[in-house]
Amino acid sequence: MALITSPESILDIALAAMQSTENQRLKTLISSLTEHLHEFVLENQLTESEFERALQFIVGIGQATGKNTNEVVLVADILGISSLVSTINNMDVDGGSYAALLGPFWRKNAPLCNWGESISRVDLGGQPMEVHGLILDEFKKPIASAIVDVWHSSPSGFYENQDRLQADMNLRGRFKTNENGEFFFRTIRPAGYPVPTNGPCGELLRAQKRHPNRPAHIHFMISKPGYKVLITQVFDSSDENLESDPVFGVSRQLVGEYLTDDKTGICKLNHSFVLQAGEMVFPAPPIP
Amino acid sequence: MALITSPESILDIALAAMQSTENQRLKTLISSLTEHLHEFVLENQLTESEFERALQFIVGIGQATGKNTNEVVLVADILGISSLVSTINNMDVDGGSYAALLGPFWRKNAPLCNWGESISRVDLGGQPMEVHGLILDEFKKPIASAIVDVWHSSPSGFYENQDRLQADMNLRGRFKTNENGEFFFRTIRPAGYPVPTNGPCGELLRAQKRHPNRPAHIHFMISKPGYKVLITQVFDSSDENLESDPVFGVSRQLVGEYLTDDKTGICKLNHSFVLQAGEMVFPAPPIP
Repeated sequence: MALITSPESILDIALAAMQSTENQRLKTLISSLTEHLHEFVLENQLTESEFERALQFIVGIGQATGKNTNEVVLVADILGISSLVSTINNMDVDGGSYAALLGPFWRKNAPLCNWGESISRVDLGGQPMEVHGLILDEFKKPIASAIVDVWHSSPSGFYENQDRLQADMNLRGRFKTNENGEFFFRTIRPAGYPVPTNGPCGELLRAQKRHPNRPAHIHFMISKPGYKVLITQVFDSSDENLESDPVFGVSRQLVGEYLTDDKTGICKLNHSFVLQAGEMVFPAPPIP
Repeated sequence: MALITSPESILDIALAAMQSTENQRLKTLISSLTEHLHEFVLENQLTESEFERALQFIVGIGQATGKNTNEVVLVADILGISSLVSTINNMDVDGGSYAALLGPFWRKNAPLCNWGESISRVDLGGQPMEVHGLILDEFKKPIASAIVDVWHSSPSGFYENQDRLQADMNLRGRFKTNENGEFFFRTIRPAGYPVPTNGPCGELLRAQKRHPNRPAHIHFMISKPGYKVLITQVFDSSDENLESDPVFGVSRQLVGEYLTDDKTGICKLNHSFVLQAGEMVFPAPPIP
């Protein structure tokens, strides 16, 4: 009988209506989502005005999404969903993840650089930084000739494409590992920055009394044919927002020791990365 | 420790970050929603491309929503969420509901009509219909001088505002109950019609092999000071789509006996409605 007899009966009727879905995975996912949403409504005895407000919020995040901002991704970020999906799909043996979110600022075709070259292409002040890295496979063997694509924000917390004071491709570059799987580059120390707060997600963060500031980090995208492309971030161990990242992106594996050399005043980071065997598939660049 | 150590740890960290939310109800709702969404991702081991597709869908329904269409409401409808929220907030003693969704076509200020007047204001053909109704309170006592606002689709399945063949306010009218709590009007028998299928929700229905056709129904909004406004629909008992309503709006209480008089050929409906004591609050009209 497909007529509603109680609030609980609606779920069964809805699930029955979805039984003919051809794509079995779609059927599983939409059925499971429907079940969870019904449970959510029942457990909380959602009122009609709360429901209306929730629908308005979804319209709002869809309509606020455009060329330069994606509030739908952002709400998934600030509820921890994006981080969860990234973690379960890039899990290491300890149940953590070497991967992190791509973020909205990766650009394709950053300049190819030589060993030790600086990616600071304009004088912005800030603390000089040296980054040494090591790329390993899952058996801890070094990977030579991997491409290490790096990008990060300025000491003011802006990416070059957000900031008219910076040169094109500033704080972006691609390096190749040597025969020992190592790479080395110079730059200036990045600062943290807030997620966008002028849309519906900013309103939610304010209502939750959460600050919007991501801890400082450097992005890495590491690739070599025969390996899964590793998209990751290495966070600054001394950042005060490390444990209150608004998008829950910081795992133990992603924290790097950003150490200042007392003699030279240079910030030094030494970090190793593990690539998993697999297909080398690059993401679509979020900006040109 | 607020660093991610496993996929499951992200939920606890996210919930902890929401603890300072000032509005306790908001805190409860967002925490519960976050919990269900994390469970959904974990149970189904959502892949990164599935996640990306889901985010695109949400952007799509937000951006397809405009003056004449609301795909966010529609997706809630076709997953049974709208019906669930309506049912739990308008539950009768049997666990069913006398209420139904307002729908997108209610207009304020439909013409005030006299006993027995016809709301068919232009000749569209179709089967003549007579509707007798009775309005009761929760103790089965008749309610006099209640306002019964009715609206429905044409024999072709269109509301007057969707159809240039119909006159303004065709198949819309407001009636007042007599001292016995009764009302009576004439009209033409409505036909069912599809929910919009040209957006993301239509795509989902096609993938689920579900038809979009709502069973034929007449909308009623019944009000009197001192009573909760009853927004409801009375469905045609003979409609073939009664048990496969795409928005899961049909409860036993909402099915009316649409009976054709063999002698006159007139369709007759006789239905009673129960108002609950409460505040008389009207909804915002979805169209002017």
